[in-house]
Amino acid sequence: MSSFPQAEVFEVPAEVKKKALVSELSLQFYKLGWLSGTGGSVTLKVHEHNVPRQNQFIVMLPSNVQKDRMSPEDMYVLSSMSPPPTKTYPHNPPKCTDCAPLFLKVYEMCNAGAVIQSHGLDACFVTMINSSSNEFRIRNMEMIKGIQGHGYHDELVVPIIENALSEGKLVESPTKAIRAYPKSTAVLVRRHGVFIWGDSWISAKTQAICYHYLAAAIKFHQLGLPY
Amino acid sequence: MSSFPQAEVFEVPAEVKKKALVSELSLQFYKLGWLSGTGGSVTLKVHEHNVPRQNQFIVMLPSNVQKDRMSPEDMYVLSSMSPPPTKTYPHNPPKCTDCAPLFLKVYEMCNAGAVIQSHGLDACFVTMINSSSNEFRIRNMEMIKGIQGHGYHDELVVPIIENALSEGKLVESPTKAIRAYPKSTAVLVRRHGVFIWGDSWISAKTQAICYHYLAAAIKFHQLGLPY
Amino acid sequence: MSSFPQAEVFEVPAEVKKKALVSELSLQFYKLGWLSGTGGSVTLKVHEHNVPRQNQFIVMLPSNVQKDRMSPEDMYVLSSMSPPPTKTYPHNPPKCTDCAPLFLKVYEMCNAGAVIQSHGLDACFVTMINSSSNEFRIRNMEMIKGIQGHGYHDELVVPIIENALSEGKLVESPTKAIRAYPKSTAVLVRRHGVFIWGDSWISAKTQAICYHYLAAAIKFHQLGLPY
Amino acid sequence: MSSFPQAEVFEVPAEVKKKALVSELSLQFYKLGWLSGTGGSVTLKVHEHNVPRQNQFIVMLPSNVQKDRMSPEDMYVLSSMSPPPTKTYPHNPPKCTDCAPLFLKVYEMCNAGAVIQSHGLDACFVTMINSSSNEFRIRNMEMIKGIQGHGYHDELVVPIIENALSEGKLVESPTKAIRAYPKSTAVLVRRHGVFIWGDSWISAKTQAICYHYLAAAIKFHQLGLPY
Repeated sequence: MSSFPQAEVFEVPAEVKKKALVSELSLQFYKLGWLSGTGGSVTLKVHEHNVPRQNQFIVMLPSNVQKDRMSPEDMYVLSSMSPPPTKTYPHNPPKCTDCAPLFLKVYEMCNAGAVIQSHGLDACFVTMINSSSNEFRIRNMEMIKGIQGHGYHDELVVPIIENALSEGKLVESPTKAIRAYPKSTAVLVRRHGVFIWGDSWISAKTQAICYHYLAAAIKFHQLGLPY
Repeated sequence: MSSFPQAEVFEVPAEVKKKALVSELSLQFYKLGWLSGTGGSVTLKVHEHNVPRQNQFIVMLPSNVQKDRMSPEDMYVLSSMSPPPTKTYPHNPPKCTDCAPLFLKVYEMCNAGAVIQSHGLDACFVTMINSSSNEFRIRNMEMIKGIQGHGYHDELVVPIIENALSEGKLVESPTKAIRAYPKSTAVLVRRHGVFIWGDSWISAKTQAICYHYLAAAIKFHQLGLPY
Repeated sequence: MSSFPQAEVFEVPAEVKKKALVSELSLQFYKLGWLSGTGGSVTLKVHEHNVPRQNQFIVMLPSNVQKDRMSPEDMYVLSSMSPPPTKTYPHNPPKCTDCAPLFLKVYEMCNAGAVIQSHGLDACFVTMINSSSNEFRIRNMEMIKGIQGHGYHDELVVPIIENALSEGKLVESPTKAIRAYPKSTAVLVRRHGVFIWGDSWISAKTQAICYHYLAAAIKFHQLGLPY
Repeated sequence: MSSFPQAEVFEVPAEVKKKALVSELSLQFYKLGWLSGTGGSVTLKVHEHNVPRQNQFIVMLPSNVQKDRMSPEDMYVLSSMSPPPTKTYPHNPPKCTDCAPLFLKVYEMCNAGAVIQSHGLDACFVTMINSSSNEFRIRNMEMIKGIQGHGYHDELVVPIIENALSEGKLVESPTKAIRAYPKSTAVLVRRHGVFIWGDSWISAKTQAICYHYLAAAIKFHQLGLPY
């Protein structure tokens, strides 16, 4: 109808958007106590769906930095190929998160869209209630429905693995636990915290809220509330 | 007096205002832990007063979405007629909250202006203290005065119903509880949370704060504080 | 030196500033859990010093409103004369806080610059530990130093009075407690909360933080921590 | 290549930046409960590295003020020489923090870049568990790795000193504790709180989060959680 020329629409590239999203989530999770001190992390895929693996890229936080003060330009972008061949953006002072090898493994094994590593105190506590147990079990809580693949009457079973001297060494034992518990979307690490993943960053984030809620429920149970 | 032409005043329509309000409350309640994961909800009437039922419209949140990231255009607007005949705005990816049938029932039975569904951990806990009790009772707390129709010397009695496999099936049992406890403005759901309503969104919100406060009081009592 | 005309400096009137301050503090105290539901209040003098009583005016919040959503134009301004003869600004829908008579009494008796009424759960709890005790006592905590007139080695003694059916009736018993405990800058109300005042709004606010901190300390003591 | 004149780049002086940073951290730590009432403090060096001592300047907060409402112009800047000979900016109404003598001592003894004094309730509690113990010990927690010079298998040992009548007198006993525990980057003060330092403000801040996390872990242990 009109001959007025169309303005050229500039689409913000997915990578730019996702780097901004990781820095935003990093602050949000910091305020929730999941990222604490310099620990804890969040990582997500640039494209969640329909991209062949050689074109998949993954955003990760640097290691040993303040997670409440991240900006998009602090982010690493890795190829999901392992070892990552291209497009890594190494910074001068920091390095990529120590959890990078495990994160890449989780992306590969679980076809995840995002992974969260949390130091949330309640998640840490549930691993300490019984130091010889290698499972966290809970049932009969509505919030279990928030965990991928679970309904209200399902028991939620999350594996607990032992802590390692460095996070870079936490690859083999979580891998085994993921294979042994295919229904779980989390692995607890004794006296440390929890790794949580989902098909998308939204799924990882909302499940993470549910896992921390259920851990808090168990804590109050331990403190004497009937359960 | 003056011949200066009146500027045409543009009144923002009530529906537009209320959709913005629901997205704002959604974030506020998320931060309070009432909306958690993708669970919990808040709904309110476009016009709280003096509108014949066929002209009443109700704002509701979508189902299974992040409640900390809602915007006005995410909202559903339903007729309060049941089944809702007009003006539903279905989205493509999400659907309207699973609690819609119960919310419509509460609007109808209680002449409510707003309803809140909370997963607040303390509200969940008070349903677990005694799994055979179907009432939450508390007295002698100033905050009871904040509950509609109650004074300081009144005992507050809130019915507890059993949880259902899906929120869409939570209609009949809450309906019965509402009939059996006409003085209560809330129904607790075992191992799940609580539904709270009021004549207006302000009443629903301020009562919700009081209910959660009283639930927290009971939790500390359980933990050994004399009460 | 310069002949450039001085810009006329417009001084914002103290009353305007203080109305804005009360709405700001109202939100801050709401987030701390002191103002909760529609309960709790904060009030302060327009001029803290050197104003003859007939010229003193006091800012108060309305009654029964959402304390997280106050704006300066919601405020009442009362004369500190009792009964207040001038300059009250009654609103149409709400009325001035039910605590107004007590607040005026505290201004008169304690020469206060501000008064805070808190429903903080921990403050409520310390009144419930021993229902026959009419004092809250604590010693050997650095935070006691934050209470006006107290040092680290002083014991802090705060009177506890019984609750009344309405806050408007809470005048005579707090007055007696204030007379009986001239060193205290607070009165606890059983199963209700606490009134706290100071020479200035800053003093009332910082003391209120100390009182709530000390109440929290006692709560954990009750839960089994040695003290 | 281009003859376009370079815009003169104006570098914000380090002192200006650091004064703004201290006021920002002051609010952040207030929200975390570390700075509480008017108590608690944070101080940092204008230049963290490579400046001869006579040119080192230190930013400090005033004493006895609201730490949630600091602005850059409220800050003191002291020489790190002791007694500080130059460039002090005394304010009219407040004075520099009472902890200044201790802070200067910590800068000198530990070559610190920043020091935090926290009243965090959990840090206070760990000093009260055993009133005859003068050490806080914890092991087997991942968060220990966040403390400078510590790995997961190290035991963390923090000295506890007795409180003094005024913070200005807390110099000699912390000095002794620092000498006796060279591996610790914190000193706990009985029934008071904790002093924490690091090579840089980032190190002090992230370690402070770890110390408070570990103190919270011990609190829940005390409340009956196995540990």
